[in-house]
Amino acid sequence: MVIWEDLRSWQFWKAVLAEGLGTLIFVGVVLGASCPSRGSVPGITPDPLQPALAGGLVVVALVQVLGEVSGAQTNPALTLALLCAGRLDLLRGAAFILAQSTGAILASSIFYLALPQTAVVQLVTRVSSGSHAGQALGMEFFSTFQLILTVFAVTNQQQQRDTGGLGSLAMGFSVTAGTLAAGTFSGGSMNPARSLGPAVVTGIWDHHWVYWMGPTLGAILAGLSIEFLFSSGASQKKLVV
Amino acid sequence: MVIWEDLRSWQFWKAVLAEGLGTLIFVGVVLGASCPSRGSVPGITPDPLQPALAGGLVVVALVQVLGEVSGAQTNPALTLALLCAGRLDLLRGAAFILAQSTGAILASSIFYLALPQTAVVQLVTRVSSGSHAGQALGMEFFSTFQLILTVFAVTNQQQQRDTGGLGSLAMGFSVTAGTLAAGTFSGGSMNPARSLGPAVVTGIWDHHWVYWMGPTLGAILAGLSIEFLFSSGASQKKLVV
Amino acid sequence: MVIWEDLRSWQFWKAVLAEGLGTLIFVGVVLGASCPSRGSVPGITPDPLQPALAGGLVVVALVQVLGEVSGAQTNPALTLALLCAGRLDLLRGAAFILAQSTGAILASSIFYLALPQTAVVQLVTRVSSGSHAGQALGMEFFSTFQLILTVFAVTNQQQQRDTGGLGSLAMGFSVTAGTLAAGTFSGGSMNPARSLGPAVVTGIWDHHWVYWMGPTLGAILAGLSIEFLFSSGASQKKLVV
Amino acid sequence: MVIWEDLRSWQFWKAVLAEGLGTLIFVGVVLGASCPSRGSVPGITPDPLQPALAGGLVVVALVQVLGEVSGAQTNPALTLALLCAGRLDLLRGAAFILAQSTGAILASSIFYLALPQTAVVQLVTRVSSGSHAGQALGMEFFSTFQLILTVFAVTNQQQQRDTGGLGSLAMGFSVTAGTLAAGTFSGGSMNPARSLGPAVVTGIWDHHWVYWMGPTLGAILAGLSIEFLFSSGASQKKLVV
Repeated sequence: MVIWEDLRSWQFWKAVLAEGLGTLIFVGVVLGASCPSRGSVPGITPDPLQPALAGGLVVVALVQVLGEVSGAQTNPALTLALLCAGRLDLLRGAAFILAQSTGAILASSIFYLALPQTAVVQLVTRVSSGSHAGQALGMEFFSTFQLILTVFAVTNQQQQRDTGGLGSLAMGFSVTAGTLAAGTFSGGSMNPARSLGPAVVTGIWDHHWVYWMGPTLGAILAGLSIEFLFSSGASQKKLVV
Repeated sequence: MVIWEDLRSWQFWKAVLAEGLGTLIFVGVVLGASCPSRGSVPGITPDPLQPALAGGLVVVALVQVLGEVSGAQTNPALTLALLCAGRLDLLRGAAFILAQSTGAILASSIFYLALPQTAVVQLVTRVSSGSHAGQALGMEFFSTFQLILTVFAVTNQQQQRDTGGLGSLAMGFSVTAGTLAAGTFSGGSMNPARSLGPAVVTGIWDHHWVYWMGPTLGAILAGLSIEFLFSSGASQKKLVV
Repeated sequence: MVIWEDLRSWQFWKAVLAEGLGTLIFVGVVLGASCPSRGSVPGITPDPLQPALAGGLVVVALVQVLGEVSGAQTNPALTLALLCAGRLDLLRGAAFILAQSTGAILASSIFYLALPQTAVVQLVTRVSSGSHAGQALGMEFFSTFQLILTVFAVTNQQQQRDTGGLGSLAMGFSVTAGTLAAGTFSGGSMNPARSLGPAVVTGIWDHHWVYWMGPTLGAILAGLSIEFLFSSGASQKKLVV
Repeated sequence: MVIWEDLRSWQFWKAVLAEGLGTLIFVGVVLGASCPSRGSVPGITPDPLQPALAGGLVVVALVQVLGEVSGAQTNPALTLALLCAGRLDLLRGAAFILAQSTGAILASSIFYLALPQTAVVQLVTRVSSGSHAGQALGMEFFSTFQLILTVFAVTNQQQQRDTGGLGSLAMGFSVTAGTLAAGTFSGGSMNPARSLGPAVVTGIWDHHWVYWMGPTLGAILAGLSIEFLFSSGASQKKLVV
């Protein structure tokens, strides 16, 4: 069977390892940059500028490092969208999401051990005090939609040749832009693994479903939009059939 | 007739849809990044750094995603300049501006529903309290001039081949630079659609003409400068004839 | 004579115009981004982050727009270094510096008219209160040295082919890095035209020589370092001869 | 002997000079951007945003300028990792580290002379008051690991051709991301030379070992991970043999 061949193949495990390590690095960098410097008042949503920049820039690097190994997805919402678009098989999708979740929890554990209890609580993405869950859900949906639109467009085989590698920049810049856009409302996660890690280690699960449902729906809609509407191969016929 | 052929073509409606969606994403990201984090005092012009960065970076991504479909203009001032330069026909120009305005109003409606009334008022671009309308007009003209100069130069067919795709970066970086330059005076709009959206949903139309006249005049002058002066094909003769 | 041919050529005047317009845009963007937002206290050196980012990003755009016309130098220190390295003839060098100075004074005049007197004073680069002239001179020298090192390296004919257009990014990023490095000491000018403009319109000439001598010496030393030491064509022999 | 040939070769000394000058520029830019603007309170860890941006952007420029001469390593941890991976011979490695240390001490001396005693103390990277040495060590390890992973991946011969020069961007962006991630805990050095310079001129050696051990271990582990796991040439066999 094909599954057994995959499970025995070095390429498969290398890709799974790459997703785990990549998510560990991404979540570690974002959490580190989110740590409140200077004795800041707890309870206030931290300014999203530094984690937004750090997250976007590390994605540019990760795509260069791990792009050829596993695609450097490092985001369960993206993996689910690739599954829905038929670009990824089920075994790989499930293994990648497990690896991403493990990487994110490992990264969060480091900060749980390194930070005092009052500081680590601030790493959990949560609906900000001025918003309610629906607003956070909407902003996570919107930000992830624009991010995954970019990822699907630049990884499209035919366009990739034209852009000559600029795709990794566009992906990272989308991460920064989306985090800045949603930061005030929901913390700007766009990545269920990034929200899962701190939730597991702190045990704070308030509105956690927002950070799975918003990004996943946004990602799937974005993926289908590119596949059926905007990619150079898409046509009216493809939409109908 | 050609117009009827256009109206029946899938390519035409795909481009119109791309302009609507692209402007929705651009305006949504800029407005989201403009939302005052932490209980900031109303009445103070928010710092332009975060919307400037978010706007510029999402433009880089949008050009990669929608550039081949419609050019990812997402700005009525640019569309008008392309019309004046004869790079776009009237039907397409009118349809694009309608789509851009619709996208911007849709994006603004989301924030109108999501934000308390005191916060949504801050999303309207307006002449800052220390300036008067003429200064804001001048800065919108200047900032849009440098932005559209960049857009026209990098989309010039002959140069495009040499720069190898770096054009999208230059466009996005111009958006950030222009927003930072004009931010203190006028909010750094450079895009009539970005100003139209919040004005429609809040009903605040103070000095709204500034955000159509400044960017449009700046864009048209920039477009003509490139076409007749600085493009590699331009020559003294072309200027005379 | 060659000079008369130049003076009659459209290419020559187009390049001079490009330098004037380019410097007007560069200085206008930097001054606009330096304007204190929110009623900030006069006398305090403004934070260099926003002008540093705006200046660097607009340079990336200007190199794409005007690079083929005049090289988009927009900096008298760079023009003088190119003169010393024999990459530019005397007529062109003198005309470029005149055009750059005119563009910078024009840009500064706009802000002189637009801003209240207390705000326009803050646009003048000056030795910060905690430093003395020698420190400011040293930092301007250092920052300009690293900037012009980058400009000379990436405009080197042989390397240009390899880097595939990334040179414009490296130039702009050097502007941002240098401004951040020298900002606290001297305002991070690295460009005599940027300092000349506000000095002319405000009549504040304190330590103005620092902003000509520091950048010019740094630029010339950097140019000679690349030509005789680090360029791929340079060799021990070239240094001796 | 090969060593004597190296010591007589102009290429060898040019590379050593490039490492010294490159580290002087890198450390000078980072220290300059770390200088507290506005009379800030001593004892508070400065915000890492400005040095993080300046350091990352100047690395992009330095790779363009000195990349072909010496690789623009400017980091003893990277040089040690290249030694371990067999990409660099012992003589070159030792000479580079000496040159890097000298450049960093020279850059720090400038700021020692330029700044008042209370300010220069803030340039020393140190374990922040809320952390202990083990946390700082862990964050330096983690940040350097992701940085050197990027450097090794993009300098890999086979991948370099595909990415077309984007590697220098990925390296610089990793520097910024890593500095932002570790900034709150340890100052985000990731470079023993950057920490050595201020320590030598101020005589403050508290926890100095952290800034050699953390980056070096992170760099070596990252180098080996790329060589044996993720590079396109790596395979299960290579790992076993």
